[in-house]
Amino acid sequence: MNHPPIVAIVGATGAVGVEFLRCLEERNFPLAELRLFASARSAGKHMTFRGQSLVVHELTEQSFSGVDIALFSAGGSLSKKFGPIAAKAGAVVIDNSSAFRMNPDVPLIVPEINPQEINNHKGIIANPNCSTIIAIVPLWPLHKINRITRIIAATYQAASGAGAAAMQELLDATKAALNGQEYPPTVLPHPYAFNVFSHNASVDLQTGYNEEEIKMVKETRKIFGDPDIRISATCVRVPVLRAHCESLTVEFMSPIQADQVRDILSHAPGVKVVDQREKNYFPMPRDASGQGDILVGRIRNDLSDPTGRSIALFVAGDQLLKGAALNAVQIAELLVAKN
Amino acid sequence: MNHPPIVAIVGATGAVGVEFLRCLEERNFPLAELRLFASARSAGKHMTFRGQSLVVHELTEQSFSGVDIALFSAGGSLSKKFGPIAAKAGAVVIDNSSAFRMNPDVPLIVPEINPQEINNHKGIIANPNCSTIIAIVPLWPLHKINRITRIIAATYQAASGAGAAAMQELLDATKAALNGQEYPPTVLPHPYAFNVFSHNASVDLQTGYNEEEIKMVKETRKIFGDPDIRISATCVRVPVLRAHCESLTVEFMSPIQADQVRDILSHAPGVKVVDQREKNYFPMPRDASGQGDILVGRIRNDLSDPTGRSIALFVAGDQLLKGAALNAVQIAELLVAKN
Repeated sequence: MNHPPIVAIVGATGAVGVEFLRCLEERNFPLAELRLFASARSAGKHMTFRGQSLVVHELTEQSFSGVDIALFSAGGSLSKKFGPIAAKAGAVVIDNSSAFRMNPDVPLIVPEINPQEINNHKGIIANPNCSTIIAIVPLWPLHKINRITRIIAATYQAASGAGAAAMQELLDATKAALNGQEYPPTVLPHPYAFNVFSHNASVDLQTGYNEEEIKMVKETRKIFGDPDIRISATCVRVPVLRAHCESLTVEFMSPIQADQVRDILSHAPGVKVVDQREKNYFPMPRDASGQGDILVGRIRNDLSDPTGRSIALFVAGDQLLKGAALNAVQIAELLVAKN
Repeated sequence: MNHPPIVAIVGATGAVGVEFLRCLEERNFPLAELRLFASARSAGKHMTFRGQSLVVHELTEQSFSGVDIALFSAGGSLSKKFGPIAAKAGAVVIDNSSAFRMNPDVPLIVPEINPQEINNHKGIIANPNCSTIIAIVPLWPLHKINRITRIIAATYQAASGAGAAAMQELLDATKAALNGQEYPPTVLPHPYAFNVFSHNASVDLQTGYNEEEIKMVKETRKIFGDPDIRISATCVRVPVLRAHCESLTVEFMSPIQADQVRDILSHAPGVKVVDQREKNYFPMPRDASGQGDILVGRIRNDLSDPTGRSIALFVAGDQLLKGAALNAVQIAELLVAKN
């Protein structure tokens, strides 16, 4: 790997791609060159990075020559095709899709949780799903002290997880609704204006869980290195642009107090406690948008658990940042630090 | 009580008041006369009922002379003051506020669940909180067959629960956001456009639960007649106009199968199963708005419970109808049938 590395972004013009550029710039990521790739449709566009205008190139099998780190966010099928090509060309791929996450040869990394996994890659590293990351960054420091045995999650997910087109659809559909017009959805399966709907991921006909929910189950187990942790999630889209919320009920091995949780989380990396009971001020997507920390509040002992082992929480995190681009750039920083 | 009765509506011009009129009309409620009351500010307005224009009168201590049934939805402090006055004047009060719900002398009724309580009133009957009703209408037929021991709820609550002004604030704030303008909230404590926030009810500083959540705990126990049922709720506002959703994890005394739940609910009164896994079609506020049934879907065995005793569900119900006006009018129908 060159020092500083040559970095490529695959899917540069997408919702996450734009945030890759912003994170690299804001974090002063050390790089020799930044190369931007997207589909033929977006090729020729210009994007600004550190005051310079960079042209977006069409992604081809030759795109990765000399590239040290390739940040992918262009969907699972493109990752499946071009990820191995990039790795073979000598790049380390950090992939934001679900294509490789459960592959045992692919580390699945949240830098606050399992940075040591950076040593185990074979050319491809996977970035976890946004809903998983946003839940587990604050749960990990608790799990280390008092093992988590069960998580029940209900999510309030933003449009951004379905891409820039879904964000635009939310805006357009809402504008239409305010004007008393119908707006037939084209990106998401259901009308989005002033509506809530079960996550658009496909549903397993046997269990009734959708893929987004199953990601939370499997990825959490892999990242925590704990195959026994029991998880149920209900993933839901709400009319919000770019930050997810989650209501979490978390059961621990031993009794635990809300005050202790608040204290641990107030010192945890990547977490900001927002838990002002007297002001009714708790995590909100509006506050989480644009910041890297996961906001955590509504921290309280679960009234329904007389054994005192359950805690209820409400979290909010920027889906495009810690839920995607920022986490990937943090993984890239681990790579640079290692080399 | 006269046959047919003379009915009064207190708070006729509010969000629920308007729905009282609509429900009475649509259900052909038998009444000799309808009298409308509101604050001095709204007195003199006209509202249409069965093709006739009725004038709204200012509520006074003399308003209840000759009234048989008084439907109240004007806030807790007005209920506390005028409810006993109405009852003393000979009316049966059906009160939509929280003022009397936990009073042991006041029946708290959901007609699909505990209609027999109609015989125990002393002039005042309470209508439960919207979040409670919407959760428990579908849970009751299950509870009768296999006792529910624990409920974990996360709500997705509409603006309407905070009144017509909150609904207008959501519309105005969203319009402003689409125009790139700030909109300082005046009705609700937080910006509502494309945002989600913890319910605006006051928070108990000791436990961290807010009043809306505690209502779900206490009211469910009273209506089910089961003081042992363990309940934890996280109540959250989402930018939706008039229907609430809830993600429910429900633990039963004995193992239970999702198919059995679906079968029971498909025959349950006040419930409509919307659970099309293959089409990813489940309960949505958009579909629940304007209808009396509680929509129930995402019915599945809880992956996090290896004992097979937990079921996950997602429900949606019109906050102004079954969550408020419709349930109250159904209680009035029980009164009429009894007399």
